[in-house]
Amino acid sequence: MYYFTSDYTEGCHPEILKKLGLTNREQTIGYGMDEYSLEAQRLIKVQCGRSDVDVHLCVGGTQTNLTIICAALRPFQGVYGAVTSHINTHEAGAIERTGHKVLELPTPDGKLTAEQINQAYQGYDTDPNREHWVQPKMVYISQPTEIGSLYHKNELIAIYDVCQKYGLYLFIDGARLGYGLCATDNDLAIADIAQLCDVFYIGGTKVGAMFGEAVVIVNPLLKDGFRSIMKQSGAMLAKGRLLGIQFQLLFTDNLYVKISQHAVDMAMKIKKALQDKQLPLLADSTTNQQFVTLSKVDYKKISEQFVLDEIRLLDDGQIVVRICTSWATDELQVDHLITVIRSL
Amino acid sequence: MYYFTSDYTEGCHPEILKKLGLTNREQTIGYGMDEYSLEAQRLIKVQCGRSDVDVHLCVGGTQTNLTIICAALRPFQGVYGAVTSHINTHEAGAIERTGHKVLELPTPDGKLTAEQINQAYQGYDTDPNREHWVQPKMVYISQPTEIGSLYHKNELIAIYDVCQKYGLYLFIDGARLGYGLCATDNDLAIADIAQLCDVFYIGGTKVGAMFGEAVVIVNPLLKDGFRSIMKQSGAMLAKGRLLGIQFQLLFTDNLYVKISQHAVDMAMKIKKALQDKQLPLLADSTTNQQFVTLSKVDYKKISEQFVLDEIRLLDDGQIVVRICTSWATDELQVDHLITVIRSL
Amino acid sequence: MYYFTSDYTEGCHPEILKKLGLTNREQTIGYGMDEYSLEAQRLIKVQCGRSDVDVHLCVGGTQTNLTIICAALRPFQGVYGAVTSHINTHEAGAIERTGHKVLELPTPDGKLTAEQINQAYQGYDTDPNREHWVQPKMVYISQPTEIGSLYHKNELIAIYDVCQKYGLYLFIDGARLGYGLCATDNDLAIADIAQLCDVFYIGGTKVGAMFGEAVVIVNPLLKDGFRSIMKQSGAMLAKGRLLGIQFQLLFTDNLYVKISQHAVDMAMKIKKALQDKQLPLLADSTTNQQFVTLSKVDYKKISEQFVLDEIRLLDDGQIVVRICTSWATDELQVDHLITVIRSL
Amino acid sequence: MYYFTSDYTEGCHPEILKKLGLTNREQTIGYGMDEYSLEAQRLIKVQCGRSDVDVHLCVGGTQTNLTIICAALRPFQGVYGAVTSHINTHEAGAIERTGHKVLELPTPDGKLTAEQINQAYQGYDTDPNREHWVQPKMVYISQPTEIGSLYHKNELIAIYDVCQKYGLYLFIDGARLGYGLCATDNDLAIADIAQLCDVFYIGGTKVGAMFGEAVVIVNPLLKDGFRSIMKQSGAMLAKGRLLGIQFQLLFTDNLYVKISQHAVDMAMKIKKALQDKQLPLLADSTTNQQFVTLSKVDYKKISEQFVLDEIRLLDDGQIVVRICTSWATDELQVDHLITVIRSL
Repeated sequence: MYYFTSDYTEGCHPEILKKLGLTNREQTIGYGMDEYSLEAQRLIKVQCGRSDVDVHLCVGGTQTNLTIICAALRPFQGVYGAVTSHINTHEAGAIERTGHKVLELPTPDGKLTAEQINQAYQGYDTDPNREHWVQPKMVYISQPTEIGSLYHKNELIAIYDVCQKYGLYLFIDGARLGYGLCATDNDLAIADIAQLCDVFYIGGTKVGAMFGEAVVIVNPLLKDGFRSIMKQSGAMLAKGRLLGIQFQLLFTDNLYVKISQHAVDMAMKIKKALQDKQLPLLADSTTNQQFVTLSKVDYKKISEQFVLDEIRLLDDGQIVVRICTSWATDELQVDHLITVIRSL
Repeated sequence: MYYFTSDYTEGCHPEILKKLGLTNREQTIGYGMDEYSLEAQRLIKVQCGRSDVDVHLCVGGTQTNLTIICAALRPFQGVYGAVTSHINTHEAGAIERTGHKVLELPTPDGKLTAEQINQAYQGYDTDPNREHWVQPKMVYISQPTEIGSLYHKNELIAIYDVCQKYGLYLFIDGARLGYGLCATDNDLAIADIAQLCDVFYIGGTKVGAMFGEAVVIVNPLLKDGFRSIMKQSGAMLAKGRLLGIQFQLLFTDNLYVKISQHAVDMAMKIKKALQDKQLPLLADSTTNQQFVTLSKVDYKKISEQFVLDEIRLLDDGQIVVRICTSWATDELQVDHLITVIRSL
Repeated sequence: MYYFTSDYTEGCHPEILKKLGLTNREQTIGYGMDEYSLEAQRLIKVQCGRSDVDVHLCVGGTQTNLTIICAALRPFQGVYGAVTSHINTHEAGAIERTGHKVLELPTPDGKLTAEQINQAYQGYDTDPNREHWVQPKMVYISQPTEIGSLYHKNELIAIYDVCQKYGLYLFIDGARLGYGLCATDNDLAIADIAQLCDVFYIGGTKVGAMFGEAVVIVNPLLKDGFRSIMKQSGAMLAKGRLLGIQFQLLFTDNLYVKISQHAVDMAMKIKKALQDKQLPLLADSTTNQQFVTLSKVDYKKISEQFVLDEIRLLDDGQIVVRICTSWATDELQVDHLITVIRSL
Repeated sequence: MYYFTSDYTEGCHPEILKKLGLTNREQTIGYGMDEYSLEAQRLIKVQCGRSDVDVHLCVGGTQTNLTIICAALRPFQGVYGAVTSHINTHEAGAIERTGHKVLELPTPDGKLTAEQINQAYQGYDTDPNREHWVQPKMVYISQPTEIGSLYHKNELIAIYDVCQKYGLYLFIDGARLGYGLCATDNDLAIADIAQLCDVFYIGGTKVGAMFGEAVVIVNPLLKDGFRSIMKQSGAMLAKGRLLGIQFQLLFTDNLYVKISQHAVDMAMKIKKALQDKQLPLLADSTTNQQFVTLSKVDYKKISEQFVLDEIRLLDDGQIVVRICTSWATDELQVDHLITVIRSL
């Protein structure tokens, strides 16, 4: 059985293990103040094309989301997120436990639009009783989104404009950022993102690292006290070097993009096969996640050799599944899967 | 100008002031352990038809909601509420600050149905990744609802059945309970409610008291530590006698119902006038709140002599308003308003 | 039996009830935006000798403390308080539930000193690992303190200097402020306090009101969003007029001070009797609370006619009690108590 | 320069890296449900000598502490901890952010005693106003303590007896448990600990793992919902296998104890040298941390070749330092340090 269930089924890029071995006996100070972490921060600032950002290395995605939101908001403030957003669905209420409401917005494709944010905020702002409402203060989006879709430059500019107009912080969750960077229709480099939001992070866990998410704080208002809130959130790794070494490697010789490209290439091969069979795709994803609706029979047939991620059982017995590739996906298995798809 | 904006525009029923005056010099112990509070608790238990409930007296509605929910839920648990529910809209994120997600459910008329709760919970319960979701553990409904509609006995039985099936606590916010009790179509006495939920409260603030909400805890699992959580929430009044005296009076000689009946009678007169003019009502409210859509011209005309509560401005310039009566509403003013409505 | 257990055993000053009666049928808007609340705010600003402060009216002390601290601090920040301070002892962990640590400081007399705050902060500030500590950001003191002692002007100036030096907010809990204002050794008017801290409140619950605490925010940094945090904390009374009317009266014709003076006069009479009998006082209190150690026999004798507040049972069987007077204390009963004391 | 500053200056035991390499390409499911995690759980249950415990693998110590405490306590409950305990000092208020007060108890040697817990709880339990206090519900101790001291079996039995008498959960932080297991005066095996507390954890981060703490839940009352609270706390590693592999190795062939023994042996050599020079030790530590007071001159001399952890600067200019060994400590460097100590 081969798993296409997620992008964290394997360990990590072998270069990382090699470097961990080479440096294993070195003594470093803890909590992210070591030389490897500093070098990783430097390299990420280079990627951002600006040296005035703060970079912090956290362990996982939920942890990173709750730390950023907890650090940014005052008690009566909330964060807009798509109804399908990770913070609204798969974090067991982590954001609420920090005291903040996720202000759900509907979405057909996993993305928010500038217009809907504008409208929602207007609804709040013009309400004479707005002191009795949660004050919207942040917008959370994922690039790419939880269902594989991608924001384009003009869309992000429009969203950031609305945010700046109303004093909303724009926070971009880049847990799968590498796979967005490599999409054929992508027009947003990391340096663009670093100009078009207040805070974002570059995902490692799903893109070749053992674990790790690199937070980039752009807005100076969000910088103060961040390390203390990391510590308080249990998000400050004692052996920070482990994070430093991983991100140093990922941002040396363009490794982060190279290994992401492989995942996207594999996903595009699968997508084409699905489209050729005219199987209905949930969204037009140009990244490493493909969501498709399968009949019971088709799903059973694929499941004889492959494990997919069951997303939703439909009333008519059909099933929506996620097919997920990664930096580690075996092309032979992809070809094999495609053969099975063609045979459906 | 006469205000129909809310049910808390006046002070309190004159009997309450009188009794406060008569008892003013008496010395009592604090924090709700005084004789008046004990007597109020006893009278409320009589209303409930059962002596095995715990009764606690809090000051206001938001405070009561957050205290109950905070006391009932563990950190990863959330509460179902209508999208229009008070906890989801007008409490500035009070529930989230206690760490809990309000799990929004859609509603056409302010009410939840047993069927939709069943479906929503099934969606959670059958998800293989449900450990990553907020666990639904409570259902919050208002009787009557925020838009004046009312649950009937069969509906409440059905909801409570679903709750018991899944181990969900049913919490009924009775901030306006008196006005529900007096609705012509009401078939739920307080004693019924005390059999059909885990916790509820009887509102005083909006029904003749200066302030105060009487919490009735039915489910033994919700009793432990409640007073400490009240104290911690800032919901334990030092001079608890003030609450005791008010609820003692409200539940002597049926005062609570008598004064509520007046409000409902006044609302029904207004409703009839609105219906006679075929003005569109938001919901078929049989209680003290009537929501109606008015044209700009009509609204302006009424506003020359009456203040209504503006709820929503529609795109076509019409406006949805709330007309709210109370125990204190002046019938002459009601008749006057009706005259104006007829003249529209 | 006559109670000297606390300063909230009676109802409220009769003028308040009278005014509540006179205004009872008036219609006002809610949530503290009514004319009475505005007038109370104006009068309190006059007392403060400055119009640039914000005034908010809350219901009770614990509620006020948690609202102010919650509004002022970021998640990793804490508040210095005496080990005997109300927030550290009698609020059931209300401050911790807002997420903030009470940083206990020892005290022999209920007061903090500038020097000990300086030393404690230095300990934090010079620690190379201070990112791993709670950041002290506020100092909480009570005037008068929980055990009746009083800060003098030079002490408060010194504390505020230290606070300003380190960017610490100074918050003065004035739950019994009236009784401090009337102490013979007091040299701090409300207008002085309004120059020597960042935020404070003027207690009503224990000084003649039915309930109510008037928050005065001096530091502009603490003003933003306060009403939303009040709402979210359940600290915004629907019928805000009740608070407005009470504080309007208390700050008309110097009523607040006049009624406080009576309590202090009564306490001084009792204190003299205790001192004449050379009974050991816990602190040299010049305010309405006297703490004295009694033998079992003496305590029993007094308890035949008076109820005192038992504070602590000592190992040798003696007992520390609190004798508390108030605006409502009956002088005949005081004289009677003194006779008993003399007979011990 | 050689570092004796902490037990997390190096990477991890080389066997771990080797195994990570061998398994790197394997596909596993996420979030701790993989075969390696299951096997690690099984091995730890064997160590505990009981199969009825739940085992969960978290990433770091602060994270583990806050997750356990958050899962165990209700909002008005707090946890006793030594004034020097990690949760009270070095976690930036993580416990308070979950809403719970750390109830500080004094300690001369880093340890709590059954007697002081008994006395503290009695103080709470006999207070007529205990509803206004934080309810003590848990006792937190560290084995070994933050300053290297060790609980012995009779002490732990006495503490657990008190806890059971009052319904307090006993939680043992074993971040450095391995170093306690190897102390010459240790009489507590893991299987003993698993009989004498409600929940504890076995530290990996400081004992040879890259990271990781294995939580053992003994008391069934603490088991429910733990994984959801882990997820919500950001404490559930996506690639749980990384934790599984590490703990599987540490508990195979007694590796955890073997590598801990080395650290303790090295610490004892250093301790003897310090004692031979009659340098004052902070506590009689039989584990891997030695705290010693040095004169400025001596500290300077040692610092020419070694980095120690500065704990506290005394008023007379002397300095308290920590000398910390670990599984990775180089014996040559230890001998070198001893030579320098002898030359002071």
